[in-house]
Amino acid sequence: MAPVHPFDSAKDFEIRLASKLVKDAYPASANVHFVQIDRLDPPKKDMIKYLEAEKHGFPLPNISRVLYCYYYTNTLDFNKALVNVSVGHIITKTQLPKGINGPLLPDDVMALEELCNSHPAVVAEIEKLKLPPGYSVRNDPWIYATDDPNETRPLVQFFMYVLAGNGHTESNHYSLPLKFSPVFENFSRKFVRMDFLPGGFDETTTPTLPWQEVPAVEYHPDLNGEAQFRDVRPLLISQPDGPSYTVEGSKVNWQGWQFRVAFTSREGFAIYDARFKGRQVFYRLSLSEMTVPYGDPRAPYHRKQAFDLGDCGFGVNGNHLNLGCDCLGVIHYLDGFGISGAGEPFVIPNTVCMHEQDNGLLYKHVNYRTNNAVVARKREFVVQTIATVANYEYIINFKFVTDGSIDIETRATGILSTMPIDENVKVPWGTIVGPNVMAAYHQHILSFRIDPAIDGHKNTVVYDDTLKLPRDKLNPYGIGFVSDRTYVEKAGHVDQSPFTNRTCKIINENVINPISKTPVGYKINMPARQMILADDDSYNVKRAKFATEQVWVTKYRDHELFAAGEFTNQSKTDTGLAVWANGVDAVRNEDIVVWATVGFTHIPRVEDFPVMPVETHSIQLAPFNFFDRNPALDLPQATNGFNKSTLYSSGAEGEKACCKTKI
Amino acid sequence: MAPVHPFDSAKDFEIRLASKLVKDAYPASANVHFVQIDRLDPPKKDMIKYLEAEKHGFPLPNISRVLYCYYYTNTLDFNKALVNVSVGHIITKTQLPKGINGPLLPDDVMALEELCNSHPAVVAEIEKLKLPPGYSVRNDPWIYATDDPNETRPLVQFFMYVLAGNGHTESNHYSLPLKFSPVFENFSRKFVRMDFLPGGFDETTTPTLPWQEVPAVEYHPDLNGEAQFRDVRPLLISQPDGPSYTVEGSKVNWQGWQFRVAFTSREGFAIYDARFKGRQVFYRLSLSEMTVPYGDPRAPYHRKQAFDLGDCGFGVNGNHLNLGCDCLGVIHYLDGFGISGAGEPFVIPNTVCMHEQDNGLLYKHVNYRTNNAVVARKREFVVQTIATVANYEYIINFKFVTDGSIDIETRATGILSTMPIDENVKVPWGTIVGPNVMAAYHQHILSFRIDPAIDGHKNTVVYDDTLKLPRDKLNPYGIGFVSDRTYVEKAGHVDQSPFTNRTCKIINENVINPISKTPVGYKINMPARQMILADDDSYNVKRAKFATEQVWVTKYRDHELFAAGEFTNQSKTDTGLAVWANGVDAVRNEDIVVWATVGFTHIPRVEDFPVMPVETHSIQLAPFNFFDRNPALDLPQATNGFNKSTLYSSGAEGEKACCKTKI
Repeated sequence: MAPVHPFDSAKDFEIRLASKLVKDAYPASANVHFVQIDRLDPPKKDMIKYLEAEKHGFPLPNISRVLYCYYYTNTLDFNKALVNVSVGHIITKTQLPKGINGPLLPDDVMALEELCNSHPAVVAEIEKLKLPPGYSVRNDPWIYATDDPNETRPLVQFFMYVLAGNGHTESNHYSLPLKFSPVFENFSRKFVRMDFLPGGFDETTTPTLPWQEVPAVEYHPDLNGEAQFRDVRPLLISQPDGPSYTVEGSKVNWQGWQFRVAFTSREGFAIYDARFKGRQVFYRLSLSEMTVPYGDPRAPYHRKQAFDLGDCGFGVNGNHLNLGCDCLGVIHYLDGFGISGAGEPFVIPNTVCMHEQDNGLLYKHVNYRTNNAVVARKREFVVQTIATVANYEYIINFKFVTDGSIDIETRATGILSTMPIDENVKVPWGTIVGPNVMAAYHQHILSFRIDPAIDGHKNTVVYDDTLKLPRDKLNPYGIGFVSDRTYVEKAGHVDQSPFTNRTCKIINENVINPISKTPVGYKINMPARQMILADDDSYNVKRAKFATEQVWVTKYRDHELFAAGEFTNQSKTDTGLAVWANGVDAVRNEDIVVWATVGFTHIPRVEDFPVMPVETHSIQLAPFNFFDRNPALDLPQATNGFNKSTLYSSGAEGEKACCKTKI
Repeated sequence: MAPVHPFDSAKDFEIRLASKLVKDAYPASANVHFVQIDRLDPPKKDMIKYLEAEKHGFPLPNISRVLYCYYYTNTLDFNKALVNVSVGHIITKTQLPKGINGPLLPDDVMALEELCNSHPAVVAEIEKLKLPPGYSVRNDPWIYATDDPNETRPLVQFFMYVLAGNGHTESNHYSLPLKFSPVFENFSRKFVRMDFLPGGFDETTTPTLPWQEVPAVEYHPDLNGEAQFRDVRPLLISQPDGPSYTVEGSKVNWQGWQFRVAFTSREGFAIYDARFKGRQVFYRLSLSEMTVPYGDPRAPYHRKQAFDLGDCGFGVNGNHLNLGCDCLGVIHYLDGFGISGAGEPFVIPNTVCMHEQDNGLLYKHVNYRTNNAVVARKREFVVQTIATVANYEYIINFKFVTDGSIDIETRATGILSTMPIDENVKVPWGTIVGPNVMAAYHQHILSFRIDPAIDGHKNTVVYDDTLKLPRDKLNPYGIGFVSDRTYVEKAGHVDQSPFTNRTCKIINENVINPISKTPVGYKINMPARQMILADDDSYNVKRAKFATEQVWVTKYRDHELFAAGEFTNQSKTDTGLAVWANGVDAVRNEDIVVWATVGFTHIPRVEDFPVMPVETHSIQLAPFNFFDRNPALDLPQATNGFNKSTLYSSGAEGEKACCKTKI
């Protein structure tokens, strides 16, 4: 077995050891109940030495493997322990203050679902529905979010739906939302209250009445009523000589790129120590947090604000990816580990996939005098994970490109979170997507954490605006424009300014490009977007300060990984960027972290139901005066001897096409 | 041979007939010299009848084929004729006023290149360079643009470069710009004057001195000095059962989409009569114009403003696309026709290519209770053309998607337009990209013309802003937000407003979606961008009003196709949107045209030289409450039986991967 690298994800034996040590530290009566266990990143100062030694083939320093454990004791006390699993001892264990809640454990969610549907208060409501035969009730446990400064209990709000489909497990219950919504206390499993949901324009609710039968809008091919499926012909992607990448443990080598990929419970995966053509570019890259606030102001919808990483874990809700399904070609998979409440690890198989793909042309030039063309195709290496967070799916792709750039792509798909709506009612905060079912407007706001190492760890964020020159002797025709640079000196954010073409760059002021005579850097290409829409003093904003701006810069400190803070479930305030972007820390020519917020306001379309075609958003990280010329000039030229494409042929057209090959 | 469809591109015999009829209308002494001949679109009112008849299998009305001819007579008189080639007569022929110039004919550009380099005034300057053996001089003829209200001559400005490479035709002359720049009159071939180019910070120029030898930055694999090319393994795309599309003449059928594709001399290609699942969505789609203004204010660079469609023709500068090179898979090609000055057509082979491709996931949902997944992949049908406009290449992709959306993608590549710069000089309007060579900041601003037919020809443009609700009884927590709609009533533009999530939609107010109870429509997704940077009263802006705003709406009129007007070469004013977006025409529930401007300010990177990795920009047209649910539910589910992907294997990793298939 290969030795464990400090960046490798947590191993099953490490998780087992950590949970055993923690359990052993309590009496059995404490009923230690784990909700998340994973590896902490090693201290960066140690890792810098480690990576230098690794690069030069020197003896490697010892770096302890440390795991964090989140767990409840005595039913409702939430604790965090740090465990050194290299030496086998607990470093710290702390009971956290009341009101700090851990993430939901998937096993607990499943158990809560059963609890809810069998609770007398819920059963009583279900009976009032007088459902016809073949119909039953399904619930979605939801994070409770925050609307009360005095609430400290770990709560779960259940949204209730009719399950049609005559027993088919894949019937789309989201199509048939009900109007009652019980709240339970997690762990104690106490019933707290029954909320009722409005069906008209305002917040008025009614007692539960017999269910008015409407057809479900089904997505599953067994149920969706499509009489005929489209005749799509296979499009096969093969690599007869094998792929252009190699993977050893967590280490990937591909087309000049070298980096490590590690599954993490909270983020899905993180990329470590990314280098291109031997030069350091990024120390760590990952999704950091996501918040999904809804715009329907009526109780209890005002509390619909999910934090899909902090509240439940993106990694532990990761899909088991399937060959020939979630990506095509020659695929390498990584597994992850989830845990049970007892702290026992289980494999989440194939939850990160990697492959290379073609993405059209990378560059081309034709000399029109000779008709000679130079053409290289754009090959990408994709690291992908997909998480299912109840109704929604998020597809996260980090795409490494042969020209030294990285595209970070988010695709949102899955099923809209729906609300009941009475017939002939319209609301200004939602779209009717099926009979008696409404999908409220909402936002998806993701923070990606970019820990740069542009030719080293001392980096600076600048932003360049493109500005008109004044009309004067030098610019008599009024057409001149120039680039104007501003340096970010203190931890904080950069305002958006699309109309001045504002572009943020991460530069290294200590390394000057010999051609341009300017500092080497990477730029961040990202469109200007509407950020979080709630009032500044709303809980939505107080809990997700990161969602108010598109670019943040902070000074690097170990373990500052999550944009809204470590604990988001029912949080009352953002303990991440709200604290770290303090306006005080010097961030020029320092070890810094950049946080890029990708936001999209989702006004649901009827076409987004019953399952949503992907909405795709990207951030590009591209070298900017980093290399001394196009770094992809060493790509082989595109030819059909290599790519083996064929001509379309169909009767007369076919013959015509064949003739063309002679031209 | 299939009958000619009114939307088919001009046929060679039609071009021959038109040019013969025009030539025959003049005495031989007039020296008729053609610069562009192509088909006019048929009148829409006739085509609506034709398409209805075609749809129902009724007898087809006769629609005459009409060609336009642009040509010079008596050396410098510019004329336009319209020729009915169905009946064989000239409809009109008109001499255009002095100062209106036609597009450059590629043959003429080649001849001008020779003229320039052999002209005594130029030869004299070249001699002063005292070039070492193995070096010669190459020139790029450039459109002259505009800085003088009294200038009416057809002029060409030549940028001069050293050609290194020891006789290799593909040496990158753009790397070695010279400091003299002759101007010639086109057609008369008169030498007008010698401009000199500054090398320092300001506009000071110097007489030609012996050339200071610096190495060229080469892109061609023979010359670029790469010792070792990357080991990229083949990634083959095959369709063993054939593609999912059929093409008959100009008509494409693919996955519910039906449309026609026709090559055009000016636009590359146009899409006609696009329908999805039997419903009309767009009558015509095409690139309409592109302007490329440069920000270097110093003479003569202030005149660097290309109109890549109007000044020279995007189609007639189209590449000959190669199998397995410009796109992969099963490819269908269309040819185009260029002409000689004598009006003789020649084939531009394979200048439009079409194929289908995979683009990741289209939708996915996993029921976390059962782990059952519904997954469909995103298949796209791509219509692509690539034009070489001197130094730059533009790749235009219209991508039709299985969910009823269309992505219009522009990729800019090729070689930066360069300027000489003296050693140790920096300028605020350009990047040094190699020894003594600078690339000025510039903008690429493209207008795409969208002629909608959303369930018919009476359409309306609206824009929706997402706005916070005030905090009140209905919104006590300050988290509510709603969508606010504005109707465009008069021909004009829509202001950008990214921070209110402003989204333009083309709707049909006469057709109500039965689910959402709102008008059916398509939305236009496009990021907010910096528009043209020059002063409002500059020629750059006066000539390209379209480049000042991102969305324009006009009333449909036949032959209003080009955003900056019909004649852009040395134009003094925009005769397109500047006229048609008049604030007067009613455009609500009318036959309308939408013009979407995609702009990007290009601050060159060293990495963009000597050939530029693609910079990619997109507009998405997506159904918005057009269908009654996700229209892609009839796609087959993704499986590996269909897609035949394989697992990565490498020693121990391979075994591990194999085991995983059993999980």
